[in-house]
Amino acid sequence: MANRPFDLLNDAIGKEVLVVLKGNSQVRGTLQAFDVHMNLVLENAEQLENGEAKTKYGKLMVRGDSVILINP
Amino acid sequence: MANRPFDLLNDAIGKEVLVVLKGNSQVRGTLQAFDVHMNLVLENAEQLENGEAKTKYGKLMVRGDSVILINP
Amino acid sequence: MANRPFDLLNDAIGKEVLVVLKGNSQVRGTLQAFDVHMNLVLENAEQLENGEAKTKYGKLMVRGDSVILINP
Amino acid sequence: MANRPFDLLNDAIGKEVLVVLKGNSQVRGTLQAFDVHMNLVLENAEQLENGEAKTKYGKLMVRGDSVILINP
Amino acid sequence: MANRPFDLLNDAIGKEVLVVLKGNSQVRGTLQAFDVHMNLVLENAEQLENGEAKTKYGKLMVRGDSVILINP
Amino acid sequence: MANRPFDLLNDAIGKEVLVVLKGNSQVRGTLQAFDVHMNLVLENAEQLENGEAKTKYGKLMVRGDSVILINP
Amino acid sequence: MANRPFDLLNDAIGKEVLVVLKGNSQVRGTLQAFDVHMNLVLENAEQLENGEAKTKYGKLMVRGDSVILINP
Repeated sequence: MANRPFDLLNDAIGKEVLVVLKGNSQVRGTLQAFDVHMNLVLENAEQLENGEAKTKYGKLMVRGDSVILINP
Repeated sequence: MANRPFDLLNDAIGKEVLVVLKGNSQVRGTLQAFDVHMNLVLENAEQLENGEAKTKYGKLMVRGDSVILINP
Repeated sequence: MANRPFDLLNDAIGKEVLVVLKGNSQVRGTLQAFDVHMNLVLENAEQLENGEAKTKYGKLMVRGDSVILINP
Repeated sequence: MANRPFDLLNDAIGKEVLVVLKGNSQVRGTLQAFDVHMNLVLENAEQLENGEAKTKYGKLMVRGDSVILINP
Repeated sequence: MANRPFDLLNDAIGKEVLVVLKGNSQVRGTLQAFDVHMNLVLENAEQLENGEAKTKYGKLMVRGDSVILINP
Repeated sequence: MANRPFDLLNDAIGKEVLVVLKGNSQVRGTLQAFDVHMNLVLENAEQLENGEAKTKYGKLMVRGDSVILINP
Repeated sequence: MANRPFDLLNDAIGKEVLVVLKGNSQVRGTLQAFDVHMNLVLENAEQLENGEAKTKYGKLMVRGDSVILINP
């Protein structure tokens, strides 16, 4: 059980996460790294539109202050 | 009685909360963790649309600065 | 007479307040707690639409940076 | 003559001010208190629409980061 | 020659400035005071619409974080 | 070669830069000064619309947090 | 493997990156420099519209708080 929100991110390293961004964009990928600003690195990342993969990105850095929700 | 707003979150650990986010999105789930930035972890979470469950997420991390209201 | 804005909040503890939020949403309830970030806890809270009660919430935590106006 | 912007607020205590808020809302009232965040307390306050009084509020706390202009 | 941006404001004290605000509103007036947050006090101020004076304000305090451009 | 982003600004002193602002406004002028907040002073500045000069400003202070892109 | 998000930027120096900005604008170029605010310098930069190069900029400084995603 995660006692702090960032524990959830720590447990999600190496696993697929879905990230909802401001402006209702969504990206999905394997969480490789994060920092205290909630900046994220995703591998095998793709941008979603209406739940469908729209653009494949390989690696992707997500700026933390763009994040609304993270679903590990 | 909560004397400080974060006491309310502390009392809500393990209970269902409804969270209203910027952009009028809503998520609902069992509050598992929070931090001083109001980042939240919800279990058995779902996104709502017009009060109806739209997407089920399992675990969900909510970024604190996306939060408008929390209803424990 | 309040000499500092937060004195007004202190005097409003236990009384009904109307809170205007960013995005023109409004909530009303009995102020139970607040902190230096203007995070608020309201009891017997309800969300208003066009001045009419729309959703009743019981307790409600309002994130301070969503607040525009507070009418004690 | 005000040498610093907050001197203007200090000189306006007890006088009527018009406050233009983000989202083009306007409130008017007698300035009773302010702090370094530009949070304001107005007495005999009213919200304006197209320059006409729309809602009377009595006392009103205005969150500083909602303020665009203050006309003392 | 101004070596730092705030030198420009210092040199503009007592002179007319045009200020472009977020939301494309514009105000014009004689700069009387400013601070490190770029809060401004303007005298003989007026709000402009399409380059025409729309509302005369006398004194006006402009919150710094509403400022986009200042034309001294 | 610039090793840090602000080196680019330092090298651009005295040269023409194009600045893209939030809200898709653009200004162009000779960079005279900047600070750590990315506040800028431009000389012989003009606001652009669809790439055409629309308004000439002489000197212009640009608030750093309005900046999206700077093209030296 | 990047252990921290900024490691990804460090590894991307000298390589082409795609940057998604707030407001859905996109720029592409060779990453030359970055700082802790995620301010970026791109060489041979171009702004994209619908995935097509629209404007070529040569050098470009991108303000960090405009960044949503970086694809190295």
